[in-house]
Amino acid sequence: MEQKMEIYEDLRQILEKAASVQAALALIEWDNETLAPKKAGEQTAKTAGALSGIYYDIMTGPSMDKALKQWKECGEDNEDARKADGTFWSIDEIASRMCCETEKERRLLSCVPREEYEEFTKMTNAGGRIWAEARKKKDFSAFAPELERIIEYKKKLASYRRKDGESLYDAMLDEFEENFPEEKLDEFFGTIREELVPFLEEIRTKGRKIDGSFLYGDYPEEKQEKLARMMAEYIGFDFERGVMAVSEHPFTTSFHNKDVRITTHYDQWLDHSLFSVIHEGGHALYELGIDDRLTRTILGQGASMAMHESQSRFMENIIGRSQAFWEPLYGKVQELFPDQLGKITLEHFIEGINQVQPGLIRINADELTYSLHIMVRYDLEKGLMNGKIRVSDLENEWADRYEAYLGLRPKTADQGVLQDIHWSQGSFGYFPSYALGSAFAAQIYEKMKESMDVDGLLKAGQIHKLTEYLREHIHRYGRMKDSLTLIRDTTGEDFSPRYYIRYLKEKYGRLYL
Amino acid sequence: MEQKMEIYEDLRQILEKAASVQAALALIEWDNETLAPKKAGEQTAKTAGALSGIYYDIMTGPSMDKALKQWKECGEDNEDARKADGTFWSIDEIASRMCCETEKERRLLSCVPREEYEEFTKMTNAGGRIWAEARKKKDFSAFAPELERIIEYKKKLASYRRKDGESLYDAMLDEFEENFPEEKLDEFFGTIREELVPFLEEIRTKGRKIDGSFLYGDYPEEKQEKLARMMAEYIGFDFERGVMAVSEHPFTTSFHNKDVRITTHYDQWLDHSLFSVIHEGGHALYELGIDDRLTRTILGQGASMAMHESQSRFMENIIGRSQAFWEPLYGKVQELFPDQLGKITLEHFIEGINQVQPGLIRINADELTYSLHIMVRYDLEKGLMNGKIRVSDLENEWADRYEAYLGLRPKTADQGVLQDIHWSQGSFGYFPSYALGSAFAAQIYEKMKESMDVDGLLKAGQIHKLTEYLREHIHRYGRMKDSLTLIRDTTGEDFSPRYYIRYLKEKYGRLYL
Repeated sequence: MEQKMEIYEDLRQILEKAASVQAALALIEWDNETLAPKKAGEQTAKTAGALSGIYYDIMTGPSMDKALKQWKECGEDNEDARKADGTFWSIDEIASRMCCETEKERRLLSCVPREEYEEFTKMTNAGGRIWAEARKKKDFSAFAPELERIIEYKKKLASYRRKDGESLYDAMLDEFEENFPEEKLDEFFGTIREELVPFLEEIRTKGRKIDGSFLYGDYPEEKQEKLARMMAEYIGFDFERGVMAVSEHPFTTSFHNKDVRITTHYDQWLDHSLFSVIHEGGHALYELGIDDRLTRTILGQGASMAMHESQSRFMENIIGRSQAFWEPLYGKVQELFPDQLGKITLEHFIEGINQVQPGLIRINADELTYSLHIMVRYDLEKGLMNGKIRVSDLENEWADRYEAYLGLRPKTADQGVLQDIHWSQGSFGYFPSYALGSAFAAQIYEKMKESMDVDGLLKAGQIHKLTEYLREHIHRYGRMKDSLTLIRDTTGEDFSPRYYIRYLKEKYGRLYL
Repeated sequence: MEQKMEIYEDLRQILEKAASVQAALALIEWDNETLAPKKAGEQTAKTAGALSGIYYDIMTGPSMDKALKQWKECGEDNEDARKADGTFWSIDEIASRMCCETEKERRLLSCVPREEYEEFTKMTNAGGRIWAEARKKKDFSAFAPELERIIEYKKKLASYRRKDGESLYDAMLDEFEENFPEEKLDEFFGTIREELVPFLEEIRTKGRKIDGSFLYGDYPEEKQEKLARMMAEYIGFDFERGVMAVSEHPFTTSFHNKDVRITTHYDQWLDHSLFSVIHEGGHALYELGIDDRLTRTILGQGASMAMHESQSRFMENIIGRSQAFWEPLYGKVQELFPDQLGKITLEHFIEGINQVQPGLIRINADELTYSLHIMVRYDLEKGLMNGKIRVSDLENEWADRYEAYLGLRPKTADQGVLQDIHWSQGSFGYFPSYALGSAFAAQIYEKMKESMDVDGLLKAGQIHKLTEYLREHIHRYGRMKDSLTLIRDTTGEDFSPRYYIRYLKEKYGRLYL
């Protein structure tokens, strides 16, 4: 037993070393987005590059080899070690999961020749620049040749990574979300297409008109900041274990479970800062809720991209855009903005923040249409990777899908195919997790309602009860379980998109039809 | 030649890796002091600890061994490589200096057994806490036993480090400033004692009265910040390559020569924020001026503590408290603070910012008395290390010296022996560099005046000409030269404190006598 603890400590120490380098990289990124001076970029990128190399060496190096081997040899099912530490997991369970996740990460890191990986990093750095210029000029043809190169290289990298029977795109998807290959996603998006496209059409043609125009206007930044801080605190973001700052695009980052940070962005649309804070706050609560035993190791982060997104979208949309949530709060918001919201009733406010407005821009999309934007990207990514869609046709393919799903056709490339940075950075397979996250959230919500009076608690200002539920079932586990297991253990059944569809149809049917 | 370049690149790459870890550590420290949430400390300390370990491993590891050995073998005086890159240094010169500084650092790192070093780190972490509590209670006896332990351990560590013939205190001094062992410092502080103690006495008894009271009062923080930014920009701090923030105690940090950061602190004494910005700005200009070839390597930092301090004190005191400096600026300061400074003439302002006020607190000391505060600490450190002063007598020894040098006796320990954090953290040998820096600055100033009309340039708002001179002679060299060589190459003679004494006597004689 004693020897086993020693071996566990060895393993943990190397993982903590790797996690420390990752935390430094995350801090550099946070600093870049929120504070770093304009001209620092090039040199700081070299610092980050060197740290990434160190991370690679730790994860794939001989000390790690030895630690993994030693753990395996001492037997993973030693009953002595179970629950020895008095928590709800045994050392055995933690260490086995650590080994398993570490092996996966090692495989991802080492299956690609290092020079090729560096080459790709350079390519996507240039890609980001070329994309930004093309977007400015609204000219897809200025980006297309670079995109073609990135896709070819990305396929090559995926060919090293893919397992038997996987498509190239499957290998890319797997980086962000395990257990959701093309086959499953086809089914998932198939359901969305079948159910939500006609439903949206019905709302567009027969639905009543809803006014959300009051959300645009003269909302002074310092008051928006005050509101943002109030909201972050209200949903349980702990400013003694977190920081809020401003960046171009809102994001969340975590250095460990005592230091989790969110950003927001202030503009003339109050919805932006208000709901980005609730959204990023949802991500942050996840990271803050991870068990002390896991933080600063490979298990000390959210289970997956989609599971993370489920927590942010649960807070932002399911909770944050509900009437019950705002009942104890809205009066304070009116006090803060008497000129802008004094005459807007709670009911009018709730309608406004739930207005459905099919648009061309993903990041401005409402809750109902959001996954249709994702579906466009899923279709196209898949087509690009299996060769059925050519880059030269991409602009048209994009426009056709927007027309089919959302009833709109972009007039310029910056409103269409050039709007997202992801592809220019080689991120293919990332988009689907946004939509999956919403569906996870709806399924968890359904179950949560069985065990507590969600609306009643919200009306009573008891939102922390919801967070406790999420911490109990999801957050504290970090990466101890994958997302499918989390869903199954939490809800008692396998993942199914039907809760998501039902939730959307009920909510927006009630509002519009 | 080609092979030599390859060997150089190998060496450089490992040094850049080490420098990247140092930059990450510096960023963590910056973040801790300016932004990090309250409860992050313990976990973040673990991250920093792991990164320090990685730094240790890189500096002392086999890749570094190999790179150093290879460089030595390929011959340091290969004429082919000289000036091959078209700059004012050859690859040979840079690489030789890199090897030499790296060897020193390796020796420092590896001569102490790692467990003992870690033990000492824990001891000084606790020391800082115990010191802070004792200071709050104004009770030296609550800190004395811990200080005794720290001193004993510090001596043990120094015994590993010291070279033949060095005293233990010499070994500690050497960590912060080479070439200034006890023997030289005795001479240096001897001159200061002989010259400045009676001079101060003369000013105190016969000098006229000067009023600086207008510097205290209602100076709103946002206006102080505006002034601080204006001043930073005026002296040449480049906000595209730097950041300014707020922390408890002002400091400067550098990640590379395109990202150098300063902090300040706002309170009711305008002098604090105003001159801390000029002081830290002086440090920052040094780091910003380091040659591109050296940044992100072991040579990409100031030559020494004292040389760094010479640059900050040159800007703060010699330049920043001169009338010529303020002539083109003071009107703007009055505009910013019409109620506070509208009726204070430029002459009155200059007198006020140069008021001599012997006090008990080092960090509030004026230019003239500052080095006397340092002398107290030098005497005591030396005595503690050679055993002539016992910790149990320290409070009295402190008070006696303050009385002898500054004419004042502390009534409470927080105003006396407990005022500085340094000893609680095991920093012995650090203080002298503050005084040395002032003396370096005065000698450089004397020489600078021979080659340019310093006052005329300042009056014409041409302060950048002074910075160019410093960059040319000091800044760009980073650690290519040690401080004595820099002084010799810049001024044409060896270091001597007489310029410092002369400068102070002239300036304060004119003002007071």
